[in-house]
Amino acid sequence: MDGAPLVSWTDGPAKRTLLDFVARVTKEGGPDFVRPAERIATFDNDGTLWCEQPMQSQLFFADDRLRALAGKDPTLKDRQPYKAFLEHDLKTIASLGKQGAFEVAFATHAGLTEDEFMSAARAWLASARHPKLGRLYTQCVYQPQIELLDHLRANGFKNFIVSGGGIDLMRAFAEEVYGIPPERVIGSSVKTRFEMRDGRAELFKLPELGSFDDRDVKPQNIGLHIGRRPILAFGNSDGDLSMLRYVKSGSGARLALLLHHDDAEREFAYDREFRLSPLVEALDHADAYGIEVVSMRRDWNKVFAG
Amino acid sequence: MDGAPLVSWTDGPAKRTLLDFVARVTKEGGPDFVRPAERIATFDNDGTLWCEQPMQSQLFFADDRLRALAGKDPTLKDRQPYKAFLEHDLKTIASLGKQGAFEVAFATHAGLTEDEFMSAARAWLASARHPKLGRLYTQCVYQPQIELLDHLRANGFKNFIVSGGGIDLMRAFAEEVYGIPPERVIGSSVKTRFEMRDGRAELFKLPELGSFDDRDVKPQNIGLHIGRRPILAFGNSDGDLSMLRYVKSGSGARLALLLHHDDAEREFAYDREFRLSPLVEALDHADAYGIEVVSMRRDWNKVFAG
Repeated sequence: MDGAPLVSWTDGPAKRTLLDFVARVTKEGGPDFVRPAERIATFDNDGTLWCEQPMQSQLFFADDRLRALAGKDPTLKDRQPYKAFLEHDLKTIASLGKQGAFEVAFATHAGLTEDEFMSAARAWLASARHPKLGRLYTQCVYQPQIELLDHLRANGFKNFIVSGGGIDLMRAFAEEVYGIPPERVIGSSVKTRFEMRDGRAELFKLPELGSFDDRDVKPQNIGLHIGRRPILAFGNSDGDLSMLRYVKSGSGARLALLLHHDDAEREFAYDREFRLSPLVEALDHADAYGIEVVSMRRDWNKVFAG
Repeated sequence: MDGAPLVSWTDGPAKRTLLDFVARVTKEGGPDFVRPAERIATFDNDGTLWCEQPMQSQLFFADDRLRALAGKDPTLKDRQPYKAFLEHDLKTIASLGKQGAFEVAFATHAGLTEDEFMSAARAWLASARHPKLGRLYTQCVYQPQIELLDHLRANGFKNFIVSGGGIDLMRAFAEEVYGIPPERVIGSSVKTRFEMRDGRAELFKLPELGSFDDRDVKPQNIGLHIGRRPILAFGNSDGDLSMLRYVKSGSGARLALLLHHDDAEREFAYDREFRLSPLVEALDHADAYGIEVVSMRRDWNKVFAG
């Protein structure tokens, strides 16, 4: 077992709900016992495990890649949507919608092998800093969530990420930062081409979207990748609602949680108006849907790790 | 650690190669050491972990389902390709090609929820018998492979299935029979639809193919689901060749194995002529590609489990 669990969670209803749920599903012989193989927990990443403001890291990562490409092809800086990325024009980027913006981001890595992409992602994560927080992106993860992942793992849970972010960018840090290995990371993905090149088998990234892991696609990808209905899910936007409802629709003990960003002082305060990933229906109907709302301001006594 | 490993493997080159490989990658400080997180092993299922003759179990399973559907719609028994399935007309089924035959099989389960499909699959596996071997399909698994999976697991490997078979049919028995949980099963899949029905969130199977997990799609799906290049792979047909070459193309110690069905007495003898899943290029070029050929007749002193 871990030490005192969830120390960065304030003593209150959210922390009690989490501790109680884990205690119930792990109590052998109890009415809510779940065997370890079925203790599946799924977490959104952007805005749930780490900061997604002013925009998701995926888009900043693509921005750096575009800058390199624009060095070779200067016409990019005058062409939309590339111009918007290069100029950090958040309004134009947001006008593309989440999927549209991410598709541009994903396409910037077309032609790279999986191994080359991983190297590029690791190099970026090791040096790029969040524009408002001034720290490495991997230091923008939420300490209370790290503790929750630890507590679940110590109690036999298998933690998965199910996020709209690019699957491979998340895999470049999820094991080290969250203790979640690549095979437990589900995200948006591009199609790849298999090719023997110089006698070596490689997977090359294509500019074509394979799966945009948002909204209904989240439970669909849970079915495809995990093959079991999770018993706990944690999200922070309407993009997570289908996943949360999928979890709540299973029989037995189930817990669905929604992080509400209501802490302008320590992080950001936003919900409905964040066009890239709004929170409206899930918040308005949380009670009716049986979703527990976690308030960053009220329920966390510390926000960032480190 | 497990007891005496690989007892159903005859003392010979194949067994020595396997034991030596596992010893090398687990020897801390040794030149070939691989940390546990990266000890990924991928296995084809049909013809590698269990019997695939006279045709893959997936097709027999669909046949039973078609029989039920034909009870409601008698015209099916006069319409191809359903007629061929209902009459066990292997020649016509084979003429569809592997993907064509599987697509018909998958489509028979359209409209079921994931949970309903699992119940149907478990009921079928608990009662249906292999037409030639006369035993339950789950008793058509190969004892030497069960021991290999055990030995790998005991040495910190993560075992995955990467097979052309339907992902959910395999998930219905892989945990119990192979010790491989659903999230480590990769296979062919249909698309699903997410829907709230009577206030309950469900995934419904569609008659549309999502991924046919054969040939180049195997390494592509390894990239998508696992996100790491395996260090060991085991197959038995040209459908596995891209996966085997993908594994061999990684740096460090790698092992690619090919099961050759050359044992007409205890199982079946076939390779080039098996239209649903031929073995030609992988066998002819095994040496050039660095693939180890395992002979069922020579290398296994026992074939079936139980």
